[in-house]
Amino acid sequence: MGGALLSETLSEILIPVAAVIGIGFSLLQWLLVSRVKVGPEKASSRNNGVYNEFLLDEADEEGTDVRNAVPKCAEIQNAISLGATSFLFTQYKYLGIFTVCFGLLIFLFLGSVEGFSTNQQPCNYDTAKMCKPALANALFSTIAFVLGAFTSVLSGYLGMKIATYANARTTLEARKSVGKAFITAFRSGAVMGFLLAANGLLVLYITINIFKLYYGDDWEGLFEAITGYGLGGSSMALFGRVGGGIYTKAADVGADLVGKIEQNIPEDDPRNPAVIADNVGDNVGDIAGMGSDLFGSYAEASCAALVVASISSFGNNHDFTAMCYPLLISSMGIVICLITTLFATDLFEIKAVKDIEPTLKRQLIISTVLMTVGIAIVSFIGLPSTFTIYNFGAEKVVKSWHLFFCVAVGLWAGLVIGYTTEYYTSNAYSPVQEVAQSCKTGAATNVIFGLALGYKSVIIPIFAIAAAIFVSFSLAAMYGIAVAALGMLSTIATGLAIDAYGPISDNAGGIAEMAGFSHKIRERTDALDAAGNTTAAIGKGFAIGSAALVSLALFGAFVSRAAISKVDVLTPKVFIGLLVGAMLPYWFSAMTMKSVGSAALKMVEEVRRQFRDIPGLMEGTAKPDYATCVKISTDASLREMIPPGALVMLTPLIVGTLFGVETLSGVLAGALVSGVQVAISASNTGGAWDNAKKYIEAGASKAARELGPKGSDAHKAAVIGDTIGDPLKDTSGPSLNILIKLMAVESLVFAPFFATHGGLLFKI
Amino acid sequence: MGGALLSETLSEILIPVAAVIGIGFSLLQWLLVSRVKVGPEKASSRNNGVYNEFLLDEADEEGTDVRNAVPKCAEIQNAISLGATSFLFTQYKYLGIFTVCFGLLIFLFLGSVEGFSTNQQPCNYDTAKMCKPALANALFSTIAFVLGAFTSVLSGYLGMKIATYANARTTLEARKSVGKAFITAFRSGAVMGFLLAANGLLVLYITINIFKLYYGDDWEGLFEAITGYGLGGSSMALFGRVGGGIYTKAADVGADLVGKIEQNIPEDDPRNPAVIADNVGDNVGDIAGMGSDLFGSYAEASCAALVVASISSFGNNHDFTAMCYPLLISSMGIVICLITTLFATDLFEIKAVKDIEPTLKRQLIISTVLMTVGIAIVSFIGLPSTFTIYNFGAEKVVKSWHLFFCVAVGLWAGLVIGYTTEYYTSNAYSPVQEVAQSCKTGAATNVIFGLALGYKSVIIPIFAIAAAIFVSFSLAAMYGIAVAALGMLSTIATGLAIDAYGPISDNAGGIAEMAGFSHKIRERTDALDAAGNTTAAIGKGFAIGSAALVSLALFGAFVSRAAISKVDVLTPKVFIGLLVGAMLPYWFSAMTMKSVGSAALKMVEEVRRQFRDIPGLMEGTAKPDYATCVKISTDASLREMIPPGALVMLTPLIVGTLFGVETLSGVLAGALVSGVQVAISASNTGGAWDNAKKYIEAGASKAARELGPKGSDAHKAAVIGDTIGDPLKDTSGPSLNILIKLMAVESLVFAPFFATHGGLLFKI
Repeated sequence: MGGALLSETLSEILIPVAAVIGIGFSLLQWLLVSRVKVGPEKASSRNNGVYNEFLLDEADEEGTDVRNAVPKCAEIQNAISLGATSFLFTQYKYLGIFTVCFGLLIFLFLGSVEGFSTNQQPCNYDTAKMCKPALANALFSTIAFVLGAFTSVLSGYLGMKIATYANARTTLEARKSVGKAFITAFRSGAVMGFLLAANGLLVLYITINIFKLYYGDDWEGLFEAITGYGLGGSSMALFGRVGGGIYTKAADVGADLVGKIEQNIPEDDPRNPAVIADNVGDNVGDIAGMGSDLFGSYAEASCAALVVASISSFGNNHDFTAMCYPLLISSMGIVICLITTLFATDLFEIKAVKDIEPTLKRQLIISTVLMTVGIAIVSFIGLPSTFTIYNFGAEKVVKSWHLFFCVAVGLWAGLVIGYTTEYYTSNAYSPVQEVAQSCKTGAATNVIFGLALGYKSVIIPIFAIAAAIFVSFSLAAMYGIAVAALGMLSTIATGLAIDAYGPISDNAGGIAEMAGFSHKIRERTDALDAAGNTTAAIGKGFAIGSAALVSLALFGAFVSRAAISKVDVLTPKVFIGLLVGAMLPYWFSAMTMKSVGSAALKMVEEVRRQFRDIPGLMEGTAKPDYATCVKISTDASLREMIPPGALVMLTPLIVGTLFGVETLSGVLAGALVSGVQVAISASNTGGAWDNAKKYIEAGASKAARELGPKGSDAHKAAVIGDTIGDPLKDTSGPSLNILIKLMAVESLVFAPFFATHGGLLFKI
Repeated sequence: MGGALLSETLSEILIPVAAVIGIGFSLLQWLLVSRVKVGPEKASSRNNGVYNEFLLDEADEEGTDVRNAVPKCAEIQNAISLGATSFLFTQYKYLGIFTVCFGLLIFLFLGSVEGFSTNQQPCNYDTAKMCKPALANALFSTIAFVLGAFTSVLSGYLGMKIATYANARTTLEARKSVGKAFITAFRSGAVMGFLLAANGLLVLYITINIFKLYYGDDWEGLFEAITGYGLGGSSMALFGRVGGGIYTKAADVGADLVGKIEQNIPEDDPRNPAVIADNVGDNVGDIAGMGSDLFGSYAEASCAALVVASISSFGNNHDFTAMCYPLLISSMGIVICLITTLFATDLFEIKAVKDIEPTLKRQLIISTVLMTVGIAIVSFIGLPSTFTIYNFGAEKVVKSWHLFFCVAVGLWAGLVIGYTTEYYTSNAYSPVQEVAQSCKTGAATNVIFGLALGYKSVIIPIFAIAAAIFVSFSLAAMYGIAVAALGMLSTIATGLAIDAYGPISDNAGGIAEMAGFSHKIRERTDALDAAGNTTAAIGKGFAIGSAALVSLALFGAFVSRAAISKVDVLTPKVFIGLLVGAMLPYWFSAMTMKSVGSAALKMVEEVRRQFRDIPGLMEGTAKPDYATCVKISTDASLREMIPPGALVMLTPLIVGTLFGVETLSGVLAGALVSGVQVAISASNTGGAWDNAKKYIEAGASKAARELGPKGSDAHKAAVIGDTIGDPLKDTSGPSLNILIKLMAVESLVFAPFFATHGGLLFKI
């Protein structure tokens, strides 16, 4: 049971260095993107660099008015950026109030565990030693919560800034070649991915070191307090996902219903009053929301691993390097992803549309293979050869190579999930093509086939997750699960890069259409976008898979802290928890979908009103009133994010306080096993519908051309499917990850309170 | 711990007497229905009874050709009846082969437990006594299985016969008044309800008494063998539901897609080639399938209660009356339902359309209130005042009034589920009206709102089930759950009556349209049908709620027999079972929905072909080729029922054999908690869409008229929703009940095998 090969000092240095490298790389990518100039000064900056040389070449061929289109591009980008920023700041006001109130709640609840006493108490797991008072844990948990919330919001905000910075640049590059456009979108995605991964690691690292100054040897208390970081990150992610999701889909659905179906104008047509809101939505929902979400997963997985480790031999022996194993994995992940990115941006070049998807897929496989080696190295140097893990009251002896397998199985399960998602949502394969074919008989069969596809697409991911759970659980109990989750998230920088690439391309296409670029350019951005739909689905697959592992790990940590040694389904308390927990994803989805539906109805009425009341709008001679549509989305999302948010945040508090930790365990397990299925099927169904529509529009094969062209009956049926899929794939589906994670991390943070004061109903 | 007040002899007499009363009442209802004459001899039988006096009065007013319409009515009825009979007999051939093979499997698996030894063995729960050999249990389980299968098939078949006998009679009565038509449809439903309840009870009772001749005092073995009855009933129900569900919805969806959407002809128009297949489908799916399903639930709940009781003090003391408590409850149920039926048929009269729904709803509340008293009586006279129950290795002392509460809580939970379902699926309330309003903006919003409604509708039923589980579990462990399930099913005769009423009315409407009766009559049958959609949804709610309780009880019995004392979620074996189990309903739904979709596509092509190739079809001068459509539905359903059937039947066998009883426990619990949600939401979503469409068509309010009339854009959107809902509410949703019940009862039957030979993978 000796120490790790890596000395404490060295690991104290390596972790921040990796984070700084990540941030540096991110800035470098940003610099490269910024070389593409947008805006009025563009014409005068011809001598600025090689990139500008080609900006004006192909555009003229179809007689597009370039002098007009390019400044328009800048103008639109500006409008989108302004809209997104203004929405996020309004949202942050609400979130600020929430953070203060909930922070206070944490402090009060946790402080009350020992009646706000300031005296040291015997430790839970080693009663011979003295630990810091519960009041201190309450205070530091609150601080960690605020820090987590802040980092999460920052991640989302920076992501949005980069995306709105990159979208018009991608459009302009699309005039040169599809490869150039791809690189721009991909680099911008990478900026976000690396910034977020590095930032999350750095803040966590600094927080641990600062907290250590107070806690000293009381690692149990230290890492208990650190869990607040995960809670903060995830609660912001919840509102970001739900609010952003409602925003983007209200606008999108509203725009499509009137624009594409009633008025028969193309997607992103500037005459559509909801078009700016739609593009803003991509950035606040898919980018900022996704960023917060994955940051939350990352923070929670780290917290779960740390809190379980703190009561294992790492914590008892104060082996700091081994304790930091989760952080070392993430550090290695940043380096590996950096290398992986070079394969897409520098080592290979995209020459045609058909190269896009393989390149993105290659990113997944390269990062996974390299990371497997990385994990082996970290496990070898960062862990003692044998150690013990806390396993629900018992001790379990684990070898360092066991942990290697745990992390690796998580990583590879992620790859399996990613590839399965791709198979079910890309229109290169038969499932989506079958859905497209079913449009021949109308919207109803399209929906039936799409729903069936989504249901079917859960099978392989569930087996992959189950295998990962079985291996890691058997090898290293809940610590194994936590590091398996980290394994899946270790390539988060790459995952986020290919994920953020999607909405950026989507926006680029929108800008091309609005600015009036030629059909050829729109075709290129459409191809980028179609690949983006698939990668977005893959990103969601990762998010859900990792959420499942993370919440199981958090659940395990909660059970450990609440001092439960078994969760027996054959007791009524647990079983009803399981049943009700399995219901929560449905309740939550009902709320979010209906919110989107209602907001979309309002949007539709406004868009119809504008087409009716503004003379010359349809002819393109008058400008629509974009601002009113932006306001409808903003108001709806801010109002409607509260009930689902309350459901998620209050359930653990109410169940834990009234029914106690056993019922709460049941609720967490039930929500986990049911939520994963709903989330995967919802997001894949939506992705498949979207790409079935794109399949018909692109008409790349004989079978596809028979269904088209745009405006045909089959295409109309496909558009209906796409519209239904919008809230499924971008609002309710991805928010469910957060539901299951957040309830688990909240239970973990409040575990000492529930263990002391919980179960009021049964006590009476 | 004395005996029950009721003597053994008296209970031996009372149970068959109640069953015979039920059968007698059913025959009486049938006699009353048969007084309405259909067919060519009608004209000559004017002096046959009061009922015929009015047959010709109102029909002439709109100039309908009665001379033509009435014989046509008989002809159509005949075609439907023939189609249904021929389908069922083809299906029974397959089921016969399955029954033989699976029966053999049961015999071999269970016989192998003690290596096919013919020696007596020490009993499991009382090793001092000797019990019958495992080989005998294998043989008698197989016999019980075959009997259960036979009774299930018989129940379905008789139900179908009655329904096809009643549909044209309901149409003819609709010419007199809506009240007369209602009575005919309702009485026919009652024939089925009472026949099924009484039949199930009688066969079970006789089987127990015959088995007792061999088993003597070995009640443990006796009631172990009896569980085969539940398995047989449920496995037939599975194929009945799935096969029938695919049949009916392939035809329905196919007919609607071409007829209503493309050709713009009304529902059930005789020019539509799929119309006969559609009406046949109602009878084989909704009637025969539903009958088998609820018979299965009833048989399983009884078996679960009996097997748990056999190892409690009832069994140990050989207290036969107490042992028969479940059968006494069912006997009382038949008597209570008989009284309840009189309220609808004799004590009140339906004068207008608006009375239909309240009358049906009143049936639920009356039967529940009366049955509560009935349960109290049975509990008082049929049970000793105190006794002990087997509780996973421990003994639990229970009082007779505890059991009263268990049964009553199940019964009332059923009522809550019924009323909630009604609220979410009837177009008299805001949820469905909101869905209808959302049709204004097209099919996409309709689908989004409908899905959200379905998700939301699970909340209250889940809380009701959870409450029932908590109360009954806490009071009397798994025996409590089993009798709670029986409580919910105790009013099954009434439940089935109002449920079967739905498809009968639906068919009546179809016949009215096809035979060319006047608009006024069609309006009446439509009103009956709209109420029928709601009652069908209520029936499904009951089926699902009781399935949840039944499968939990079976799960408990399985765990007891497999000698597991806890199912700990915090072990990897159980957790992965839970996760995979929660996935199974999705896999199953994917299969069934896609089957419906594919079969519907084929149907669409055939219907289109006929409209194209048969000259004069659209003008009504040529007859369509109904038989080809019937064949498409038949072939599709027989072929497509196999994969989902295999999934359900093989999963417990594979998991139990390879992974052992713990993982299997996880799978059962996971499938239960996840399947209930999917089933409820699917069937309510479908019901709501159907009634939203009917709401627009009926145009009974100003808001509804603004959406209509038939053929308007909003109506078209509503038809799309209705079509999507078809497979959800009639194929995948209701089949899921059977999935969860069947896996549980199969595990129970095979428990001795799994406990001895299971878990091969972990043994290696």
